[in-house]
Amino acid sequence: MDEDKLKSMRHSLAHIMAQAVQHLWPEAKFGVGPAIDNGFYYDIDLGDTTISESDFKKIEKEMRSIINKDYEFTHRDVAIDEALAWAEETSQPYKTELLNDLKRSGTTVARELDGELLGTATDGESAVETVSLYSQGDYTDLCRGGHLSRTGEVGAFKLMRVAGAYWRGNENNPQMQRLYGVAFATKEELDAHLQMLEEAKKRDHRKLGKDLDLYTTSNLVGVGLPMFTPRGTILRDVLSGYSNQLRMAHGFQKVWTPHITKKDLYEASGHWAKFGDELFLVKSQETSDEMALKPMNCPHHTQIFASQPRSYKNMPVRFLETTTDYRDEKTGELGGLNRVRSLTQDDSHVFCRTDQIEAEIEGLMTAARTLYATIDMPLKVRLSYRDDGDGYLGDIELWKSAQQQLKSAVEASGLSYFEQEGEAAFYGPKIDFMATDAIGREHQVATVQLDFVQPDRFGLEYTDTEGNAVRPVMIHCALLGSIERFLSVFIEHTSGWFPFWAAPEQVRILTINDTVLEYVEEITTIISDTVLMSPLRYNEVRYTTDVRNESLGKKIREATSMKIPIQLIVGPQDKESRQVSVRTQSGETKVALADLAEYLKKCSL
Amino acid sequence: MDEDKLKSMRHSLAHIMAQAVQHLWPEAKFGVGPAIDNGFYYDIDLGDTTISESDFKKIEKEMRSIINKDYEFTHRDVAIDEALAWAEETSQPYKTELLNDLKRSGTTVARELDGELLGTATDGESAVETVSLYSQGDYTDLCRGGHLSRTGEVGAFKLMRVAGAYWRGNENNPQMQRLYGVAFATKEELDAHLQMLEEAKKRDHRKLGKDLDLYTTSNLVGVGLPMFTPRGTILRDVLSGYSNQLRMAHGFQKVWTPHITKKDLYEASGHWAKFGDELFLVKSQETSDEMALKPMNCPHHTQIFASQPRSYKNMPVRFLETTTDYRDEKTGELGGLNRVRSLTQDDSHVFCRTDQIEAEIEGLMTAARTLYATIDMPLKVRLSYRDDGDGYLGDIELWKSAQQQLKSAVEASGLSYFEQEGEAAFYGPKIDFMATDAIGREHQVATVQLDFVQPDRFGLEYTDTEGNAVRPVMIHCALLGSIERFLSVFIEHTSGWFPFWAAPEQVRILTINDTVLEYVEEITTIISDTVLMSPLRYNEVRYTTDVRNESLGKKIREATSMKIPIQLIVGPQDKESRQVSVRTQSGETKVALADLAEYLKKCSL
Repeated sequence: MDEDKLKSMRHSLAHIMAQAVQHLWPEAKFGVGPAIDNGFYYDIDLGDTTISESDFKKIEKEMRSIINKDYEFTHRDVAIDEALAWAEETSQPYKTELLNDLKRSGTTVARELDGELLGTATDGESAVETVSLYSQGDYTDLCRGGHLSRTGEVGAFKLMRVAGAYWRGNENNPQMQRLYGVAFATKEELDAHLQMLEEAKKRDHRKLGKDLDLYTTSNLVGVGLPMFTPRGTILRDVLSGYSNQLRMAHGFQKVWTPHITKKDLYEASGHWAKFGDELFLVKSQETSDEMALKPMNCPHHTQIFASQPRSYKNMPVRFLETTTDYRDEKTGELGGLNRVRSLTQDDSHVFCRTDQIEAEIEGLMTAARTLYATIDMPLKVRLSYRDDGDGYLGDIELWKSAQQQLKSAVEASGLSYFEQEGEAAFYGPKIDFMATDAIGREHQVATVQLDFVQPDRFGLEYTDTEGNAVRPVMIHCALLGSIERFLSVFIEHTSGWFPFWAAPEQVRILTINDTVLEYVEEITTIISDTVLMSPLRYNEVRYTTDVRNESLGKKIREATSMKIPIQLIVGPQDKESRQVSVRTQSGETKVALADLAEYLKKCSL
Repeated sequence: MDEDKLKSMRHSLAHIMAQAVQHLWPEAKFGVGPAIDNGFYYDIDLGDTTISESDFKKIEKEMRSIINKDYEFTHRDVAIDEALAWAEETSQPYKTELLNDLKRSGTTVARELDGELLGTATDGESAVETVSLYSQGDYTDLCRGGHLSRTGEVGAFKLMRVAGAYWRGNENNPQMQRLYGVAFATKEELDAHLQMLEEAKKRDHRKLGKDLDLYTTSNLVGVGLPMFTPRGTILRDVLSGYSNQLRMAHGFQKVWTPHITKKDLYEASGHWAKFGDELFLVKSQETSDEMALKPMNCPHHTQIFASQPRSYKNMPVRFLETTTDYRDEKTGELGGLNRVRSLTQDDSHVFCRTDQIEAEIEGLMTAARTLYATIDMPLKVRLSYRDDGDGYLGDIELWKSAQQQLKSAVEASGLSYFEQEGEAAFYGPKIDFMATDAIGREHQVATVQLDFVQPDRFGLEYTDTEGNAVRPVMIHCALLGSIERFLSVFIEHTSGWFPFWAAPEQVRILTINDTVLEYVEEITTIISDTVLMSPLRYNEVRYTTDVRNESLGKKIREATSMKIPIQLIVGPQDKESRQVSVRTQSGETKVALADLAEYLKKCSL
């Protein structure tokens, strides 16, 4: 089933669900009911009646009955006043409100409604004259269309949950009940999706973050501002360390910039006009300085580039900085690590000559591919171009040339890619990397962005062979993106069973009894001297010992619940034979003490 | 000469300088003229006449003439009205103003005047009845005293500079000329001091910071917000890396916290009431959250400690975080790295049982001593206690016990120390480490602070052997303190000749001609494989090659001006004999290629 047909099916199920609800609760007032990713929803006002999950069975049963009757979806175009009369007759006040708004200012209202465009108005038109009504059996709805022919054609579906939703997203409006369902062409696909959701729930990084003691939050500090415990901090450090290592191999050098700046910097860059109302403002009580927390690092890095004369001989100049940016997200949108107000970027900027762009991009793409291959997440690429909108800065010819160069580099890389207009940054086109996790979900991760605008706005220059001042090109790149957000993906991708090299606690030694304590010292001496060199260099093995007087069973259960990749079980027999019993996710094996260091190094490859 | 006598001598020289100025410019109006560290100054109003350095010779000549006349310093106590009549007669309006203020509210005014207390009022008294007038020869001054017996007794002195200074520090008052001099008991001491100043000027970190390309500033970003170039960032990283390494050896673990917080955190800690007006406030445009940039990290770290139940078995818990704090310093006080608004702390906090305090302090003192021995700065210790003021939080008995424990630990360390009341933090007593730099200046660097207050305010607890909830003790410690300020000291201490292990560019290879290019590749392969393990572990050798077609002399000059510790000069003869010519500050030597890696490792010890 193609995407369009799938969407029609999901939209049709929204209408069928509304019809079933109307059969069960004839007083129901309906809002809007669009198709969404993987399913559909409908906003419903039932007055004092609350729909709960225990009602899902009877709603689904009624839906199935409607499907079995195999009604035809029919439609008719009517004048807007006729539709208003219909809404009045059928006591649907929300439809009345929508129709009145459509009558007044069609396109704006239509766009507002979550993609379900109701009118036939074209862009720029301010009022809608005719609308369409869709019916199946005894149910009629105001709708722009996009349905199957008959109710019997829908595939497999399931109601999932019900949540409160303010009418038109405005908290001053009445609260309605939003009833969600998922739907797929076949029962197999639906079951696979449900199983994925089940798996995702088990892997939820908020739960694992707590269970594995990776991060915490505090009401005193505030929402969206997670704090990382020793274990979580190790994860941050090994991941960003690896990301940096991959780029330092390409000649990047670390720099350091403060987290605040006068707003002058963003007025110069153009960010102030564009994003000024999304920034955290910083108020000095001692001076009249108008300042902000940095939401990105490029403008600061331009100032280091500009701090001394640059020659063509010394280009490219490549700066790397893992630093925390702050974005004033609405608190309602915050939760876990997925969306935070303090986001640490593994950021980098290349300042280069035009003839160096392709080689630089190739170097960065190699780094991105290596990183995501290491953590076993297949990559695909989106080439994000500008559209015809007016939010972009810079010369249109430069844009075209830049988009072409990005495309060449991506084609050379052999990665699968697709192109999308309207996804560019305001200062240039970009390559966005999408990584697929272990349960099939896609996440936007790394990014490589060309920028012809900021070098111009900051008046950056280098001298060419003739001694002339020339503008450099900037290339922005982050491999992990926001480390916090990346961690939310990484925790769920691995379900907390981090690869050996990245695990906060890599090895736990579990003793069977106290007769082996001296032998354990021999083991820890070996582990202390073991330094992993791949993929992350100078990675000292992180281990603990559990020598408590507890049963081995209890010790193993605790180590397993903390998802320690390697448990070394040490008993009198191991001591006798100068070996250790190694317990990993894939089973148990014996390793001679003399081979332990090599064994651990191999685990890291 | 003891400190008191030295101070009297400097104060006497202020009067002698004023007398000389009066002889040269009889219309001079005098403000105040106290003794200060190393010398003295006097604030003088000469109307439209400007004193410049070219006048110093004649002022000094007149001062010497007064000294040679060996006048006696005499004094008489007079009623304040009599003193007012004297000031009127001699046309000294600033003295008149001071006397009128003293008459009105004695002690406050007297305290205001930079340490030169004019009246005889005692604390709490609101008016002064008698004051003293001091005379030598034809000069009389309002003065509380503290002079030598005769002008002939002063030692060696020199006028240093003249600067503008608002009367009583208020920019709405007239601007006066502040004439500075230095003075010591002997000419040898004076010469040594002048030489130290000369040396300090050459070592000025603001000049070296630019010459050696270590950091930069930008008007767009703002004052007090330095940005670090690749070279400066290496310095930051090796120093903080070493500081962390020393503490991780004592069981510290890294954590990570955001740079902002709701002000609730500081209301709970007590910082808000105490320091609220020194914070940068952060304004969310999306929410009504009242937030601030963190000026210290302890409150954040308490929240990580509190994030899970703690048992006596797992104490101490030791957190380490190198992170940037923000303090809203007045911009007039900012310059270079010495005082900044973005200060990165190598901060750490121990949460421990009372019986663990001494061992923890000893571990931290060992770390501090190792670090400052490595960078060759002798340490001495100030034990900072509370005084009778009311700015301190916490039980007085806890304070006494804590102060005693700190003293025991310091005495055990064998470091020289002194005790000072009134220098404690508001939450507890502390050990401040003072390091002496290469030209004899003392700098406050590391700090270890006990804290019985914050654990209480945040309700922190662990369970003891009986299962009872017990308050832990907190120990704050930074070894470098503010990395920015430490760098200002370190750059001047080394005059930019950083020790080999810390130098941003450790080795530069200089070729004599192009016949050695293949041989240079052999050399760089060896250097690339060399990893220093002491004092900082996993420290890859940072090198560059200079193979330009320039004269060796020019290449050496450039490498020397960048203060590269090791220059490897490579010519045909070196290639022939499989060696390199090593040029360091201490001279030139030959090293066989086969010994190069070992040679470099030895340089790092």
